[in-house]
Amino acid sequence: MTNKENNFVKEITSKEEDFSQWYIDIIMKTELADYAPIKGCMVIRPYGFTLWENMQFLLDKRFKETGHSNAYFPIFIPEKLLQKEAEHVEGFAPEVAWVTHGGTEQLAERIAVRPTSETIICSMYSKWINSYRDLPVLINQWANVVRWEKSTKPFLRTAEFLWQEGHTAHATEEEAEEETLQMLEVYRDFIEKELSIPVIKGRKTEKEKFAGALRTYTVEALMSDGKALQSGTSHNLGQHFAKVFDITYLDKDGELKYVWQTSWGVSTRLIGAIIMTHGDNRGLKLPPNVAPIQIIIVPISSPSNRDVVLNNCNQIYNTLKKIYRVKLDDRDEYTPGWKFNEWEMKGVPIRLELGPRDIEKNQAVLVRRDTGEKKSVKIEMLEEYIGELLNEIQENMLSQAKNFVQKNTNSAETVKELYEIMEHKKGFVKAMWCGSRECEDKIKDETGATIRCIPFTQENISNKCICCGHQAKQMVYLARAY
Amino acid sequence: MTNKENNFVKEITSKEEDFSQWYIDIIMKTELADYAPIKGCMVIRPYGFTLWENMQFLLDKRFKETGHSNAYFPIFIPEKLLQKEAEHVEGFAPEVAWVTHGGTEQLAERIAVRPTSETIICSMYSKWINSYRDLPVLINQWANVVRWEKSTKPFLRTAEFLWQEGHTAHATEEEAEEETLQMLEVYRDFIEKELSIPVIKGRKTEKEKFAGALRTYTVEALMSDGKALQSGTSHNLGQHFAKVFDITYLDKDGELKYVWQTSWGVSTRLIGAIIMTHGDNRGLKLPPNVAPIQIIIVPISSPSNRDVVLNNCNQIYNTLKKIYRVKLDDRDEYTPGWKFNEWEMKGVPIRLELGPRDIEKNQAVLVRRDTGEKKSVKIEMLEEYIGELLNEIQENMLSQAKNFVQKNTNSAETVKELYEIMEHKKGFVKAMWCGSRECEDKIKDETGATIRCIPFTQENISNKCICCGHQAKQMVYLARAY
Repeated sequence: MTNKENNFVKEITSKEEDFSQWYIDIIMKTELADYAPIKGCMVIRPYGFTLWENMQFLLDKRFKETGHSNAYFPIFIPEKLLQKEAEHVEGFAPEVAWVTHGGTEQLAERIAVRPTSETIICSMYSKWINSYRDLPVLINQWANVVRWEKSTKPFLRTAEFLWQEGHTAHATEEEAEEETLQMLEVYRDFIEKELSIPVIKGRKTEKEKFAGALRTYTVEALMSDGKALQSGTSHNLGQHFAKVFDITYLDKDGELKYVWQTSWGVSTRLIGAIIMTHGDNRGLKLPPNVAPIQIIIVPISSPSNRDVVLNNCNQIYNTLKKIYRVKLDDRDEYTPGWKFNEWEMKGVPIRLELGPRDIEKNQAVLVRRDTGEKKSVKIEMLEEYIGELLNEIQENMLSQAKNFVQKNTNSAETVKELYEIMEHKKGFVKAMWCGSRECEDKIKDETGATIRCIPFTQENISNKCICCGHQAKQMVYLARAY
Repeated sequence: MTNKENNFVKEITSKEEDFSQWYIDIIMKTELADYAPIKGCMVIRPYGFTLWENMQFLLDKRFKETGHSNAYFPIFIPEKLLQKEAEHVEGFAPEVAWVTHGGTEQLAERIAVRPTSETIICSMYSKWINSYRDLPVLINQWANVVRWEKSTKPFLRTAEFLWQEGHTAHATEEEAEEETLQMLEVYRDFIEKELSIPVIKGRKTEKEKFAGALRTYTVEALMSDGKALQSGTSHNLGQHFAKVFDITYLDKDGELKYVWQTSWGVSTRLIGAIIMTHGDNRGLKLPPNVAPIQIIIVPISSPSNRDVVLNNCNQIYNTLKKIYRVKLDDRDEYTPGWKFNEWEMKGVPIRLELGPRDIEKNQAVLVRRDTGEKKSVKIEMLEEYIGELLNEIQENMLSQAKNFVQKNTNSAETVKELYEIMEHKKGFVKAMWCGSRECEDKIKDETGATIRCIPFTQENISNKCICCGHQAKQMVYLARAY
């Protein structure tokens, strides 16, 4: 391999040297995204957007299977509307982008570019919901939202990002709680099965819950640098919004009642999770279920046999494309070695190599991106074998990520222990907590770790709060986080 | 049928009485959309949004088949960027919504909420395109855009709307022109085949072309009130943007050259076109290919045979749902008559009725929304028969719409003739034009009709311009328009 062929790999900073630069290098070199000429915003390039489309497709399917429909609400929210729910406006106002002029005219009231859509959606639900017959309302929206953040990072935190936000209304408290937990489970299932990222399910503390919610549930993932990433949240809104937006229904018993609501969302941040969970020093590693290209075909030919090899590659391509997302890299201006590096960097799960000797033997060489393993497979078996191999890669990526989480989950009984872990190896730390805001704040100040969640699966590590030493109420997961 | 059962139909204003109110009534009563609590904005409700999703799916497929990928660019455009192309900013500045504050801080430079994305996309293309190897760039974006309009109407003209905008860059002028015309043909094919709406293909005049374009092509449809609707446009941008945004590439011959660009778009306005082309005084009529519900099953039962009928309906539902978008209306609180009216109003192409006598005869009754025809069909034949019937409805709706356009297309040789037609029956008018802006303006002032396009299919009606009487250059389509 010449130096030139190795160019791509060399240009990616190693994870160990500078994880943050490695992350940016991967995004830029693989053309997932680029910086936009506007502060804090990014452009999602075709390779990144196709990944997002594949994710959307698999998630949207789950939403529809659980009875939800999509709709679209305006991006603009009048200031008065945003201010109705006190906690909500307090949580979001500092990050709102404000429109003050339409054309040459100054507006009478300034308008928020939506940071989230609870308020505008509630104002419509108040009009649409009248009777128990109108319930439940199960609506989702795929949309762009804007939060004017000071410090930004592609996919993880940008001034504008893409997400979905579900907004539902129910007759009873039980139904709303059931919906909240159902959608959290949809997220867990989607993230683990399709993105091969294991997550911890749990509840957020009062401090960390969504502004205006009764309870917030979360799925938390662990990135390969040992920092946690909140990957999806599902909120039981109780009747907080129903009461200020007057969303009532006439029940079967003739009484007028407030509805119970939920909201839930995941965003393009999940692309950041894929990069940081699976990527290595050669580049991206994409889970087959969402990879824009599942198989890259690279012809290995010399000028004398170019046409024969290309013909055979085309035949394979035409067979595979009926079932898989496959691409044939028939560019003449690059060597096979250069192509290997490029497609490895781009995280394509399977590389299919075909040269004159393979053709003689009626076989092709398959190379796995996750393990680097090579295998020769008979041409007529390719279609079936590749299906199995993609599944195997998908599962292996999940089990590797699970191993990483397991190895990087420790427990601590003192704040000092927690601090040591955070300073040296990071990861998740399980610890007991008394439930007080004081201890939660103190832990953060002294260790940089925040309570990621109160997990559904509790363990009894000790009886004492890690911070104050008083009677512990529950076990929590702690980590430094994005 | 009792009065109550007839409620829905009565609530829609008749087309003949007040077309504009009929249009609004349909949108509101069928829950396609609703007014939002913000000036000029609408909410697209689940029924309307599912229609849009079906349209997106069929159009996106065509984009991908012609080699395009989707991407996402920021909604925010710095004022300086928007101002780079002179004609472009002049065309859009009066309608721009301006963001001036982020959180509590005033921004140094105000930011436009995108009215269209040429400028922000060109700034990226300038960075991404370096060599002839990078061309062509074939990108599409599905997005929301904002144009601060004074007078708005759901789907036809709203402050915010949803659309797709394709943006491509090419090495040569010929390729760019080919792409522009290819995408216009994609629109024609999509609108005629999937929406059953016939369109006239042609070129816009200099006055009516896109701000910044070299040439604009359009597909123009005729609504059932005789007014035209611009339904999709495809622009050859020439090198106008390439020159101000410095989008150059190093060609094979070693020379640095400017790229040639195109852009093209259709929007949720097409939903307005569906309503106004096909709807009648009973409500919507949706083309089967995009209808959210293709078949509505209505059980006809009395309390004594309710369970048997419902069981049989469920069996049919479970068979049909594997292939079609079907819904079973099993609500007990409404009579069959009430349901017939509701689903007719909602434009569902086929109603399937099933009662005890049908079950005895092993058949179901199918009723077409487009013609009102009824037919009994054996249960085991339903799956196949419905497929054929949906195609027949789709084609019949197109041929009915074509007949309407034909009947409502006249020709005129004088402005007075044109005026008479506009005042009485409206529709398209074919006329000869000298090509001067003076005549174009004068015709509009005196008749309210604008030149919709210079059609690709030319006819020689006379030699003289309809307005000045001098030598005519070409035939144009004229109409009053939305």
